[in-house]
Amino acid sequence: MKEAVFALICENPIRIAKVQEALAAMNIVDVGDIFEDMSMEHILQIFRLLPKDVAANVFAHIVPEKQQVLVEALTDKEVGHIIEGLFMDDAVDFIEEMPANVVNRVLRNATPERRNVINRLLNYPEDSVGSIMTTEYMALREDYTVMEAFARMREERVRGIHTCYIVRRDKILLGAVSLKSLLLAKEHVRVGDLVRTQVISAQTHDDQEEAAGLFRKYDFLSLPVVDKENRLVGIITVDDMVEIVEEEATEDFELMAGIIPSEEPYLRTGVFKHSRGRIGWLMVLMLAAILTEMILGDYENNSVLLLFPVLGWFIPLLMGAGGNAGSQAATLVIRSMALDEIRFKDIFKVWWLEIRIALICGLILGTIMTIGITLFTATDFMVTLTVASTLVLVSLLAKSLGSLLPILGKRAGIDPAVFATPMLTTLKDAITILVYFSLARLILGV
Amino acid sequence: MKEAVFALICENPIRIAKVQEALAAMNIVDVGDIFEDMSMEHILQIFRLLPKDVAANVFAHIVPEKQQVLVEALTDKEVGHIIEGLFMDDAVDFIEEMPANVVNRVLRNATPERRNVINRLLNYPEDSVGSIMTTEYMALREDYTVMEAFARMREERVRGIHTCYIVRRDKILLGAVSLKSLLLAKEHVRVGDLVRTQVISAQTHDDQEEAAGLFRKYDFLSLPVVDKENRLVGIITVDDMVEIVEEEATEDFELMAGIIPSEEPYLRTGVFKHSRGRIGWLMVLMLAAILTEMILGDYENNSVLLLFPVLGWFIPLLMGAGGNAGSQAATLVIRSMALDEIRFKDIFKVWWLEIRIALICGLILGTIMTIGITLFTATDFMVTLTVASTLVLVSLLAKSLGSLLPILGKRAGIDPAVFATPMLTTLKDAITILVYFSLARLILGV
Repeated sequence: MKEAVFALICENPIRIAKVQEALAAMNIVDVGDIFEDMSMEHILQIFRLLPKDVAANVFAHIVPEKQQVLVEALTDKEVGHIIEGLFMDDAVDFIEEMPANVVNRVLRNATPERRNVINRLLNYPEDSVGSIMTTEYMALREDYTVMEAFARMREERVRGIHTCYIVRRDKILLGAVSLKSLLLAKEHVRVGDLVRTQVISAQTHDDQEEAAGLFRKYDFLSLPVVDKENRLVGIITVDDMVEIVEEEATEDFELMAGIIPSEEPYLRTGVFKHSRGRIGWLMVLMLAAILTEMILGDYENNSVLLLFPVLGWFIPLLMGAGGNAGSQAATLVIRSMALDEIRFKDIFKVWWLEIRIALICGLILGTIMTIGITLFTATDFMVTLTVASTLVLVSLLAKSLGSLLPILGKRAGIDPAVFATPMLTTLKDAITILVYFSLARLILGV
Repeated sequence: MKEAVFALICENPIRIAKVQEALAAMNIVDVGDIFEDMSMEHILQIFRLLPKDVAANVFAHIVPEKQQVLVEALTDKEVGHIIEGLFMDDAVDFIEEMPANVVNRVLRNATPERRNVINRLLNYPEDSVGSIMTTEYMALREDYTVMEAFARMREERVRGIHTCYIVRRDKILLGAVSLKSLLLAKEHVRVGDLVRTQVISAQTHDDQEEAAGLFRKYDFLSLPVVDKENRLVGIITVDDMVEIVEEEATEDFELMAGIIPSEEPYLRTGVFKHSRGRIGWLMVLMLAAILTEMILGDYENNSVLLLFPVLGWFIPLLMGAGGNAGSQAATLVIRSMALDEIRFKDIFKVWWLEIRIALICGLILGTIMTIGITLFTATDFMVTLTVASTLVLVSLLAKSLGSLLPILGKRAGIDPAVFATPMLTTLKDAITILVYFSLARLILGV
């Protein structure tokens, strides 16, 4: 399909009717897609063949770099059409990506009302509900009849009409009515009387993650957004929510791997930006490793090592086991918190669970090591015992830290993903060494 | 709100009208929620106060353990009402969680048609599009008029009517029409004539991740599902998609931390199941550590270490740096593949990007180490050079493996998350040691 249209255009750009017909049968997202490998000249040609309302929608689906070049190539009047035709949230997304000169030109060509709304939306804090909402929604005054409601729906240009929001004259949100119940109701019923259940809404300054939680819990298609006075000011639609859910997960993946999160797609991020995002934690972790070495090399530990050089052999193995045990716990707890399955009040439940898991896993690993060392080497049994008990104790400590750090971090307002995982990596080696040599001194009686 | 209803019930279970009123004003998800901390006796009491259609919907929102107890306590007739009242996908989810005796009782009380549909849905492979679709959708024959369409909509009990699917008499899917365009159209227009663009659909046997990709790309509210003959057999709704997107991300988090994925929530999984999910990779990684130690302890490397004992000091640091550099690359590539941002064809682009990042990060770390060692210690410069070059080379190797393994794994049909991350952890130490001692022999001329 895409290929066919593309071929049609390259082959003979004059057969306009054919191209228009092919474009009309395509999903707008796919129209945006064919622009990807096309010369700017061709893009412009095709873009001008699209009906005005379709053009704005296609525009919303092309990558920012092409949006910019396109805007620069279009006339003021055409730019005006686009900015008027975009849904409000798409308009804001677009403007946020553009350099100042493009933004100025775009806003100059927007109507004053639209300019005001855009400016208001741009002013909401990043990642707030207000910054992702759209102002196109179906609001019905409570005293409308069902008939009047349908008349309004035919007029308005809104993102989705599957849910209509019922408001008072002063815009205070009263409830939500599904299109289905409007269809089922008698023509002269007041829409206000169709409201059944308490409406659930978000406030403009709430964090987008809270809104995501509401979508997750209630399976909404859209969520009304109100200001501090409970006046309806916008809605968030579920398709934006899918994106946010994915963004938040990506951010956690990055933080847990010790990378500064970036919203740009991987392949569209430059080498230096990538390197900048990664070098920080690499340096911190290298420093941590040096500290660990210094603990290892301090006078007391060193003297234990000199007496029992075989102890040194097990150090990387113990460090590895501690790291893995800890990151398993941290990963599960961080993810469960992101999905609202674990709250602060569960902290002791989580800890108790992890302690038992740590005991089971630690004892299994310790037993395997004991059998292995005894069978295949001639190591002193007391050394074997030291290694095995370190495995159990480090497993306990690592899983405790792995589960508690994210919960405490979140409580303290620090992102649990960063508070837990890179911090765990930083600490676990030092902790392992401390435990190992303390046990060694105790068991070997040095 | 929840607390108020709860108090009302505990306080005086006789004031039925008040309780019913309070329940009617609550979102069904919240009704399911109040059941969580309630005795079975109270749950049963309240459940029976709910109108039939609401009861089934509330039932879909309570946890499987409570569903089971509830079904066991209800009469056959009540069970019949629930299974008839559930949306088809919720019915299937419920049945999948129940033990055989409950399943039998439930199916015995369903109508034969419903039983057939449930059995068909249960037969689709796990994680296939068929297994998550629902069979309640709004299908309109192409020769209906708009007026007839609205009449059908008033009759049918469907999940969502925001998108209506247009089919031929033989159920072949022709297109989709939004409710909005139906509202805007004249009453006597054929709905088939309202279809504008090519319809995008999934097949029953497609993987659910492919469907997730379509939702991501096209911002659908629902996606039609067809069989091999292109007949419409169901739809997937976006709220189910949000769940799937989160499940897939959770699975990747777990695999990357070396945990066998489980679909059960963290706190509802038992200690033994948790331990079973974690012990496997812990053992593999312990074995890998032993292998690394053996490489380290082999005759040749050992003789280098005896000549330059200071080399040993840097081993954990180098292993750590390799692990972190590799997991950064692996995490980003795995996540970008999950979001369809990277395909197999991008393999060289990705590699080239990672090589340059590795060089930059490796050189920075190497330089810092060189300066640090030279300033603060009296280490032989050739040893410093060995450490610094190992940092660069290990960084290159780790980032190459971290980026290539997931892409190759996916190509070979192995989950990139498991193929890359635990495997990387297993390999990186051995590789680091090999590189370190090869360079040592070369630079120090041993």
